[in-house]
Amino acid sequence: MKRESSTQEITAVASPSLALLKYWGKQDGGINLPATPSIAVTLGGLESRARVAFAPDGTGDLIILNGREQPPHHFAPMLNELRHLARDERGFVIESSNNFPTAAGLASSSSGFAAVAGAAARLLGLPTEPEQLSPIARIGSGSAARAVFGGFTLWPAGALSATALHPVDFWPELRVVVVTVSAGAKSISSRAAMEATRRSSPYYEAWVRDAAALLEDGIEALAERDLEKLGVIMRRSYMRMFGSMLAADDPILYWRAGSLNALLLCEELRGRGIQAWETMDAGPQVKILTEESSVELVLEELQAYFPEKTPLVASPGPGLRFVD
Amino acid sequence: MKRESSTQEITAVASPSLALLKYWGKQDGGINLPATPSIAVTLGGLESRARVAFAPDGTGDLIILNGREQPPHHFAPMLNELRHLARDERGFVIESSNNFPTAAGLASSSSGFAAVAGAAARLLGLPTEPEQLSPIARIGSGSAARAVFGGFTLWPAGALSATALHPVDFWPELRVVVVTVSAGAKSISSRAAMEATRRSSPYYEAWVRDAAALLEDGIEALAERDLEKLGVIMRRSYMRMFGSMLAADDPILYWRAGSLNALLLCEELRGRGIQAWETMDAGPQVKILTEESSVELVLEELQAYFPEKTPLVASPGPGLRFVD
Repeated sequence: MKRESSTQEITAVASPSLALLKYWGKQDGGINLPATPSIAVTLGGLESRARVAFAPDGTGDLIILNGREQPPHHFAPMLNELRHLARDERGFVIESSNNFPTAAGLASSSSGFAAVAGAAARLLGLPTEPEQLSPIARIGSGSAARAVFGGFTLWPAGALSATALHPVDFWPELRVVVVTVSAGAKSISSRAAMEATRRSSPYYEAWVRDAAALLEDGIEALAERDLEKLGVIMRRSYMRMFGSMLAADDPILYWRAGSLNALLLCEELRGRGIQAWETMDAGPQVKILTEESSVELVLEELQAYFPEKTPLVASPGPGLRFVD
Repeated sequence: MKRESSTQEITAVASPSLALLKYWGKQDGGINLPATPSIAVTLGGLESRARVAFAPDGTGDLIILNGREQPPHHFAPMLNELRHLARDERGFVIESSNNFPTAAGLASSSSGFAAVAGAAARLLGLPTEPEQLSPIARIGSGSAARAVFGGFTLWPAGALSATALHPVDFWPELRVVVVTVSAGAKSISSRAAMEATRRSSPYYEAWVRDAAALLEDGIEALAERDLEKLGVIMRRSYMRMFGSMLAADDPILYWRAGSLNALLLCEELRGRGIQAWETMDAGPQVKILTEESSVELVLEELQAYFPEKTPLVASPGPGLRFVD
């Protein structure tokens, strides 16, 4: 036990991982092992910041997210794994906050768990390379396995860890316009929705099979930085993900009127030759992949539908980093 | 050839058939043989009216729908079948009109083809009982096989004809509130969308398999006039139909922002104990099954989302009838 470090605190920052090909559904045999392979980009500018210190002797984990204490059980498996690896039984005091809406389909759990995993690992004296942290962060939230990396990542089906596909500067012209259709927390967590889909959707098997078939083309389109080619595959992936959810019993529907307006706008823009390719996750928000040169136009067009909102514009961002 | 009847004209009226369990996809081996069984209600008050006469000697079919001449090839297979049955080669002059939006997902083709089939059959001296007309009307548009009947119908998978399940007065309290979200014609015909789903959706097989599994429960819920039980099954059916379309390549999406608002409103109403169960077809419109006693409230709530629209309220309606 390294009692000498008990007054230390570590702050880590991570950005959310936006899946271009979707992770939806878990395999048996481990915690958060994905049934489908995913490809993702880490979104610079959106940040989860976690400050981790040891808890006073003999007390358990205290977790405060955006100023509110959280039930510790969501964090326990990941924190226990870290304690196990470090052979250190102390509890943690964790304060985490996001500079973007939480639990609203903006992958805040990917960046949140990545930041906490990183800060706690460093506090414990464990290695903090993304390759080492990925399988640990995964235990907290599947997509956190990707968010520890910057740039572009691949998380194969069934894998304990994600891997880096391309570095953060691989595609400098790429932009992601994040339209926050509704900032409220989602009605059903992605964890619960995935499980309901697996359990009750007659399309789940086909979803898993088909997602594997999309992977090779997705990797190729990304390697070529071909936004149109990638966009077509992205749409297949997210539409099939949502199709598998609609078929669940009860049907799961994260879309809101504004989501549809945003995605129909993208369709219209593409009809006018503008590369604007949307994707969505477990929530009503819409993320539009476009090129730097089209961002202004996309924002202008969005203005008509969302006069009171200013979308975030993200570039491919860095992975986990520490704040001294 | 019955030349003596050449100055006669017949007018028939039919109402659209709203599927509660959906027909989506065709089997091989015939024209419009459904891959999935459907259960439907014929919607009183919405009417297609067809006036049919023989064309002048030696001229082909002339078809005018809502005042506009139509390419005759959509009607040819059904009209040829009628001519074949009657051993009469004459062409028809057909004028058809709807008192509700056409080709916008309100099943106007079901009522339109049913009315034309009926009027032409009578003109030709053929039998006009729904049982006789159903397999003929089906050739024009699958769901027309149901629309020749009033009340509640069943159209089994692969069947040449629909059959009557319950008469028009079986469930007098049932109402269908038809919200015309957008009156424009749909972007892709249901015929083309079905075919694209069959050809390219990885969920199509599961859709067909699952639709068969829903049938028994659907028939039972309808027999019991249990709106809640029926509503749950209806939602499964239409959500899975749309899920199979989202997964097509390219994705097929008929929903518009207003569609989502209407269906989320139904969810909210159900949360307040009001029986309001929506369904949708190939188009953005939303049809809400409710009870007579709740219609006023449903209309009031819809008013907030659709201030400029007055939804139609239909009851179970009669089948094909003739106007003297």
